[in-house]
Amino acid sequence: MPNSTSPFKDILDSIFPARSIAVVGVSNDPGKHLGGREYVNALVDARFPGKLYPVNPSGGELHGLKIYKSLQEVPDPVDFLISAIPAKYNIPLLRDCAAKGIKIIQIYSAGFSEIADPEGKKLEEELARTARETGVRVIGPNCMGIYAPKYNFSYRVGLPPESGSVGFISQSGSNSFHAIRDGNLKGLYFSKLFSYGNATDLTECDFLEYLAEDPETSVIGGYVEGVRDGRRLIDTLRKITPKKPVVIYKAGNTVGGSRAVASHSGALAGSERVWEAALRQCGVLQVFSMEELVEALMLFQYMDPPTGKNAILMGTGGGVIIQSTDETIEGGLNLPLLPAEVRKSLEKTFTTEAGGSFRNPVDIYLGRKEIIEQTVKLLTGLEQTDLLLMQIMLGFSNQTAMLRPYLKAIRDMSKKINRRTAIIIRPAGSFRYANFTLKLQQSLIAAGYPVFDSARRAATAISRYYDFCQRVRNLPKS
Amino acid sequence: MPNSTSPFKDILDSIFPARSIAVVGVSNDPGKHLGGREYVNALVDARFPGKLYPVNPSGGELHGLKIYKSLQEVPDPVDFLISAIPAKYNIPLLRDCAAKGIKIIQIYSAGFSEIADPEGKKLEEELARTARETGVRVIGPNCMGIYAPKYNFSYRVGLPPESGSVGFISQSGSNSFHAIRDGNLKGLYFSKLFSYGNATDLTECDFLEYLAEDPETSVIGGYVEGVRDGRRLIDTLRKITPKKPVVIYKAGNTVGGSRAVASHSGALAGSERVWEAALRQCGVLQVFSMEELVEALMLFQYMDPPTGKNAILMGTGGGVIIQSTDETIEGGLNLPLLPAEVRKSLEKTFTTEAGGSFRNPVDIYLGRKEIIEQTVKLLTGLEQTDLLLMQIMLGFSNQTAMLRPYLKAIRDMSKKINRRTAIIIRPAGSFRYANFTLKLQQSLIAAGYPVFDSARRAATAISRYYDFCQRVRNLPKS
Repeated sequence: MPNSTSPFKDILDSIFPARSIAVVGVSNDPGKHLGGREYVNALVDARFPGKLYPVNPSGGELHGLKIYKSLQEVPDPVDFLISAIPAKYNIPLLRDCAAKGIKIIQIYSAGFSEIADPEGKKLEEELARTARETGVRVIGPNCMGIYAPKYNFSYRVGLPPESGSVGFISQSGSNSFHAIRDGNLKGLYFSKLFSYGNATDLTECDFLEYLAEDPETSVIGGYVEGVRDGRRLIDTLRKITPKKPVVIYKAGNTVGGSRAVASHSGALAGSERVWEAALRQCGVLQVFSMEELVEALMLFQYMDPPTGKNAILMGTGGGVIIQSTDETIEGGLNLPLLPAEVRKSLEKTFTTEAGGSFRNPVDIYLGRKEIIEQTVKLLTGLEQTDLLLMQIMLGFSNQTAMLRPYLKAIRDMSKKINRRTAIIIRPAGSFRYANFTLKLQQSLIAAGYPVFDSARRAATAISRYYDFCQRVRNLPKS
Repeated sequence: MPNSTSPFKDILDSIFPARSIAVVGVSNDPGKHLGGREYVNALVDARFPGKLYPVNPSGGELHGLKIYKSLQEVPDPVDFLISAIPAKYNIPLLRDCAAKGIKIIQIYSAGFSEIADPEGKKLEEELARTARETGVRVIGPNCMGIYAPKYNFSYRVGLPPESGSVGFISQSGSNSFHAIRDGNLKGLYFSKLFSYGNATDLTECDFLEYLAEDPETSVIGGYVEGVRDGRRLIDTLRKITPKKPVVIYKAGNTVGGSRAVASHSGALAGSERVWEAALRQCGVLQVFSMEELVEALMLFQYMDPPTGKNAILMGTGGGVIIQSTDETIEGGLNLPLLPAEVRKSLEKTFTTEAGGSFRNPVDIYLGRKEIIEQTVKLLTGLEQTDLLLMQIMLGFSNQTAMLRPYLKAIRDMSKKINRRTAIIIRPAGSFRYANFTLKLQQSLIAAGYPVFDSARRAATAISRYYDFCQRVRNLPKS
């Protein structure tokens, strides 16, 4: 396959890094919508090293920066512009940008095809036409724009400064925020993220093509609501999935959801079944919520392709592990019965006073360090185990106190099942353990383990991941 | 229907309150299993006002209490006894109890029919026989026992001291702990909870019958793994469901889960379909995880029976609300299109610069207080709304800052839909908001709103709750 160049690759490359960014619509009136000011706050917070030019007819100052009364007043060249002015003013703004030699802008403003008033649709058509005429490329409108921590791009104060190799596109600003925030807690770090809204000019296809060729991106995630050109998306995905894994959450699948999509990004959601078949044929890993999207991306980062679906499920708390057993099997993994001699040895190892179950799931009472060590020794000797699911239950009895030897057990056991061990921690559900749970989760992810909230979610995600890896392996090489 | 008396009602009534509790198996050796000592710790922590008698051959002291070398040595009468000694010693212990006039004991010890060794099964049969011969009633073995905060019964340090009207039975100790801990965070307070383990003597049926007649219990929840006498359970449920709502999570439904049940409580799990049909016919509200069990009980406490399934879903964050829209409809509720005149008025109310969606879901940007007030006014005027689902998204933009007016909106809107409003807060997913989220959740529950983690869970629970209330209303009155 020829190494095609993304049509706007050069333009995007010119803003990573950008030397200067203008933000238009920076009102000083606290009663007014804060859009523009929040972008300036975010870029300052992200320590954007280039020049920042806030623009607003009011003039004044922001963060010690002069607010220019108009774009024309800005003395220097501008690499990127963010617009937060009312919808209709974006048409003349595009012409001003062209005049100033600005090649790409992002329009945060809403009030286009997503509103019920037909004026919005007309305005968006005019915007598209003006973009074509002037050659200025537009991200949006009705979008949050770019988050690219390596290049100090941020759209909100407090977004993580660490960069990584996850590329992301999102038609929704709030869901892009979800991906960053929850993703960060699940060990996801981003190369470039584009929240692209109504996709009037630059569409999901443009961003996907760009990320497919971006050397800083190893895996691509996407939240898509509605698509204007389904054929092009299919072609694009078919072209890029042999290069990099792509995970897509296509939303708005119910009648109500599709109606909500229309008034969110002015797009048509399409039928669920059609999308499911199409995405599968394109070699995409499809998921069905933002949580699942984050989890799938986490697996690409922290789990090697599984060798099969046979897992050992281990943990403490009889009833808890039974619910997890049902969930693991319903989620698509197998829990094969342990060999008789291993079961017998485990039974001997454990004192009987507090129970235990040694068939798989392995439910052990973590009362003593030696027990854990003995268990690890017995279980790591096993062949034909593809996966380990290690459940941690916090707050019950002295299991929290025995956490340290249990964590050591996880380390020792996972050496054998290298990079194919997942941790399950049910949300703390109590003030006492809320922060502790988050910290534990973070330290486990830092140690390289994917962490899930429940066995159901772990099994569902891993089973899909396995199927995906099998499918990709069997794809004809292009 | 005759007001039948539970066969062991008098015995249980005699321990609520108990004047004295003996705990047998209180080792002083820190290397040893802590079972017995933890019970003493828990009862001291729960400020049990009666007398506590720790018993162990070692003698010594615990919390300033004398450790008696044997039960015979205890000078006074004992109302309740907790045993944490190795399995086989419980047979002679039962005879000692009979000699001392103790009518009911709880056996924490494991090592009975739940272990693979056939000795365990034999031992449990002997235990059952001895219980019958002596007339001493047994809770367990292999169980956590009783949590009844009003009577200062507790099985673990740190369990909430507040009592309420939720009665609970659980074959699993760890799941009873889950119900207390997560339940507490969801506003559930308990009258009496029984973790009953292997159910050798007293079974789920005995506890259900007791709770059905307990004036301090208004609703009953149950976690059941396996049942020895299915016929009796069906008869019991059929008898009690016309008196009080009963919510059951029957686990161990997969082949692996059923295998795990056998080695957890020595019982047979049975097939999923059979149970589903049977529970339904008995007038039980069936759920499929501990989380759903807690949520269903929460609805009985904080939501009146819904008048129908038509909801308004309101929140902020376009993409987030679209996922929630799909989840609400897939969960079984309807989101009818708002009347045209209301939509038009909402559109006029909102500035267009930041978007919004007014068809249902109602996605509004919480940038201004007046907007919220106007929205509330328009939406509370609506007829034919059965339910409100109010989604709160934390941490994104200034929506967190605008939380106070939004909470006021929730209050104002829910006045019309009195006690039929549910709140959806997605888990915080960040250190910054973890504790804040828990506190917000707690304050909303304290204000009388059920709170859910996602629209899927809210809609699934409420839809089932509605169906249950309809079914019960149509039941022939007994």
